[in-house]
Amino acid sequence: MTPASKDAPAPAWAALRQHHAEAANLEMRGLFARDSGRARRFRLEACGLFLDYSRHRIVEESLERLRALASESGVSRAIGGLFTGAPVNNTENRPALHAALRYLGDGPFPSAAFDVMPEVRAARAKMRDFCLRLKTGRLRGVTERPLKTLVSLGVGGSHLGPALACAALEPYADAGIDVHFVSSLDGASLDRALQRCIPEETLFIVTSKSFSTEETLTNAQSARAWLKQRLGDDPAIERKHFVAITARGERAEAFGIDAGNIFPLWEWVGGRYSLWSAVGLPVAAFAGMDAFEALLAGAAEMDAHFRRTPAQANMPILLALLEVWYRNLFGAETRAVIPYDHALGLLPDYLQQLEMESNGKSVSRDGHRARVATAPVVWGATGSDAQHAFFQLLHQGNALIPSEFIVPLESQRPLPGHQASLLANALAQATVLMRGRTLEETRQSLKAAGMSEAEIDVWAPHRVMPGNQPISLLLYEQLDPRTLGALIALYEHKVFVESVIWNVNPFDQWGVELGKTLARAIRPAVEAAHKAGRRSKETLTDRANRLLDACSPDGY
Amino acid sequence: MTPASKDAPAPAWAALRQHHAEAANLEMRGLFARDSGRARRFRLEACGLFLDYSRHRIVEESLERLRALASESGVSRAIGGLFTGAPVNNTENRPALHAALRYLGDGPFPSAAFDVMPEVRAARAKMRDFCLRLKTGRLRGVTERPLKTLVSLGVGGSHLGPALACAALEPYADAGIDVHFVSSLDGASLDRALQRCIPEETLFIVTSKSFSTEETLTNAQSARAWLKQRLGDDPAIERKHFVAITARGERAEAFGIDAGNIFPLWEWVGGRYSLWSAVGLPVAAFAGMDAFEALLAGAAEMDAHFRRTPAQANMPILLALLEVWYRNLFGAETRAVIPYDHALGLLPDYLQQLEMESNGKSVSRDGHRARVATAPVVWGATGSDAQHAFFQLLHQGNALIPSEFIVPLESQRPLPGHQASLLANALAQATVLMRGRTLEETRQSLKAAGMSEAEIDVWAPHRVMPGNQPISLLLYEQLDPRTLGALIALYEHKVFVESVIWNVNPFDQWGVELGKTLARAIRPAVEAAHKAGRRSKETLTDRANRLLDACSPDGY
Repeated sequence: MTPASKDAPAPAWAALRQHHAEAANLEMRGLFARDSGRARRFRLEACGLFLDYSRHRIVEESLERLRALASESGVSRAIGGLFTGAPVNNTENRPALHAALRYLGDGPFPSAAFDVMPEVRAARAKMRDFCLRLKTGRLRGVTERPLKTLVSLGVGGSHLGPALACAALEPYADAGIDVHFVSSLDGASLDRALQRCIPEETLFIVTSKSFSTEETLTNAQSARAWLKQRLGDDPAIERKHFVAITARGERAEAFGIDAGNIFPLWEWVGGRYSLWSAVGLPVAAFAGMDAFEALLAGAAEMDAHFRRTPAQANMPILLALLEVWYRNLFGAETRAVIPYDHALGLLPDYLQQLEMESNGKSVSRDGHRARVATAPVVWGATGSDAQHAFFQLLHQGNALIPSEFIVPLESQRPLPGHQASLLANALAQATVLMRGRTLEETRQSLKAAGMSEAEIDVWAPHRVMPGNQPISLLLYEQLDPRTLGALIALYEHKVFVESVIWNVNPFDQWGVELGKTLARAIRPAVEAAHKAGRRSKETLTDRANRLLDACSPDGY
Repeated sequence: MTPASKDAPAPAWAALRQHHAEAANLEMRGLFARDSGRARRFRLEACGLFLDYSRHRIVEESLERLRALASESGVSRAIGGLFTGAPVNNTENRPALHAALRYLGDGPFPSAAFDVMPEVRAARAKMRDFCLRLKTGRLRGVTERPLKTLVSLGVGGSHLGPALACAALEPYADAGIDVHFVSSLDGASLDRALQRCIPEETLFIVTSKSFSTEETLTNAQSARAWLKQRLGDDPAIERKHFVAITARGERAEAFGIDAGNIFPLWEWVGGRYSLWSAVGLPVAAFAGMDAFEALLAGAAEMDAHFRRTPAQANMPILLALLEVWYRNLFGAETRAVIPYDHALGLLPDYLQQLEMESNGKSVSRDGHRARVATAPVVWGATGSDAQHAFFQLLHQGNALIPSEFIVPLESQRPLPGHQASLLANALAQATVLMRGRTLEETRQSLKAAGMSEAEIDVWAPHRVMPGNQPISLLLYEQLDPRTLGALIALYEHKVFVESVIWNVNPFDQWGVELGKTLARAIRPAVEAAHKAGRRSKETLTDRANRLLDACSPDGY
């Protein structure tokens, strides 16, 4: 697939810009006041997710013109290509088949001629077997004690997905298995986790597509040293206490890992889309393989919805179009993600990676400078906490910041009275952000509170809230594996639609290569400076100078 | 203090804008190439923190003009006011005396006429006594078992500071005390913490200035119910298993908390500036009162630096001016905070609150519309993780995003080889973000790798990196209480300087009031809709519609 260049200004962009110029002053409170059916009309349900998108600066015509842009950008054709194995990852000349990883039908995928399902199904069977052996105490370490604690060593796409899902599915844990995640190079990350582990019972899961990721391999080596120090220099340590998830099995074997403990990854799945593969092994081990397959089923359901539903009712397309609307027409530079669900505490981090690494590009698929802005900064925090942290800026700051409130009707762990308060807070914030409060309303409320006119003149301006901040409300019954799968797949497909409209490749990440290369190149100089400073007990300034001078910023 | 209106365009702003227009194309790699002394000249050390600010789009004149703006904005006078008890929180007519909380001298503070130190010192003594009794097992629950597990109930300013500091000072923990933090209304937050607690040994610390914060009091009530269910309906439960930190002691007493277990807060300290008060009790209990006082000492050292150092070498002023430079002259909408220190995982969240709640305002101190943009969105994640998550966008996205790398020379928990790799990564990223890679350099590197000219034509554009992203490198020896105190105080004062230049009050947060009020108002309707939907087993769409219709967005 070599897409036609979209770098030339397209008619749909022009029409959209004109509509925006006419509609830019759309004030939501006015739209609601003039249109009593609005609240009910801008709602959509799919795959266990309910979206209220009425609190946006849009009218029907905005959506029509956005859909025209999607159509002109070839979104339908691109979706077809995604699900049929076209090389949508064009700069690496590969398909992106994360949908195959959660395909639960019997047939081939993406096609009989190019069917990845036999290997996918074999990997799933191997995961199920592994989880069963773990759960029943048949996976044993070198001292024959059953393995009970997993330490996941991985970073980026090999970390955030499993960490998010384990935190989200904690109520499903039934096998008495503990999981720790170690991602950073900072020794404190591994060391703190190991403090909570019994070596005899600990299994390390090393996840790295290349089996050469610096962070992950450094941690794997230190983990091995920790085991050998405590259990003796037994060659069975690598065989019994390590599992690898990698596309480079030969490297894992060279590390000493048993072939039976190596789970596959494939070139056609990118790290940030890999939760659905054996990368999800910590999730399957922690929450059970059935829960993991329910996660896959939820994502597969979203795949079907995305593939088959007309744009008007297609949730990923709709969310993508709203993002394009604010990013490209209003120039919004960020989007906030606010889960009102304790279990989704890591969702903002996960989406930071998914969205910013996928679409944080400024060169189009065909090598030209992209003519429109691409991914915004995605940031956020859990709901009722965020109200007490940064909502002040959403209410009274300077920027247009669209946000998504992700709200369960029921908590995973209900306590009397809590959930109604949480829901009231989410809905109140969504309304206040949208409506704001005018100076006149503020004056009236201060007057009602007994303030004098002179005081009101002074204090009212500080309590005015401009409002008109857009919010998507995404509701669901209660977080379970299926809902989580649908939710993550929703965002994956949203990102894909945006990439088509922005004409960038969401599946590469060329921007991160040079930093890794340079880090390797300067490491000896850094290490020498670091050690010299430590030995000579220099002052902070001397040590810092020595270190900084060791890797001059002037040239590679 | 009624500051003169700064809403009129000031000469220093005009001069700065003119300099920016001339200097806007400053390319850092060129600045380094032409000026071999640059790297060494833009460095500064204070209070155990070493700042390299050479990787910024500045020349000496930029800093001179920024300092002129600070001067014209009255920064010196404002700093004087901050430390002498002037009502710098003008919209609430109060001083902001967080510096008093860490003042360790013998004299009065802020002045003999208005000396808050007697109460501050009394509170510190009470904290020390409490920690000693806890550590020695003399604090006992209703069954006479020593209390060993603390559950902190608080949100926003009553949560993020202690949570950050406990995570950061974990190596200092010596009393065998566990601490859990519960902030959210989501029942899962409290319930998950309680699963790890033994009721007989659990002490709840309820932190709320007003002792009426909905999240905190809801959690306190559920915690009490949990204790009573397990330990019987003994009135001593509130007396022995609860501590309060509040400015409204009478409300805590009405809850049943013993006066001896109530620690004071004062109107002159805002939530997000309160870590230094008894709000830090979980830190003192967990890491020891000596560590807590070292934290205070580090902050006090930064206070002295901030108060007495000329602008040229004043670190908070310098960081504030750099933020003003990018925010107001280049229009940067966000700033990234990247701690290369596992122990500072919560720092981005903490700074989100500190910076965005303080300066996320668009009305000036004197009630006019602010004429310049104020706080950007602050976001980020720990260093080596972030490289694998969102650095792609920093390297090849569309936006100017200044970032701060916060880098310890030594990890709190060193493992062989890890720290040199971590440092090499931080420095490599800082250099690549600054330098980028030109098309010509990219072509050369692909040629050296053996690619054909035709391939290079196709693939080189995807590997070009624009560079010129500004980075502050903040180095320190190793994270300890004193360094942490200095670091947090550095940001507090940076925020204060910005507020003076932007002419907003950093100590109020009027924007968050209406949401709370509305949440209370709609709660009965929300609860009714929530319960009705649950009882009748409606579909998701029916339940969501019922809930949304119960609180119409059209009007308060």
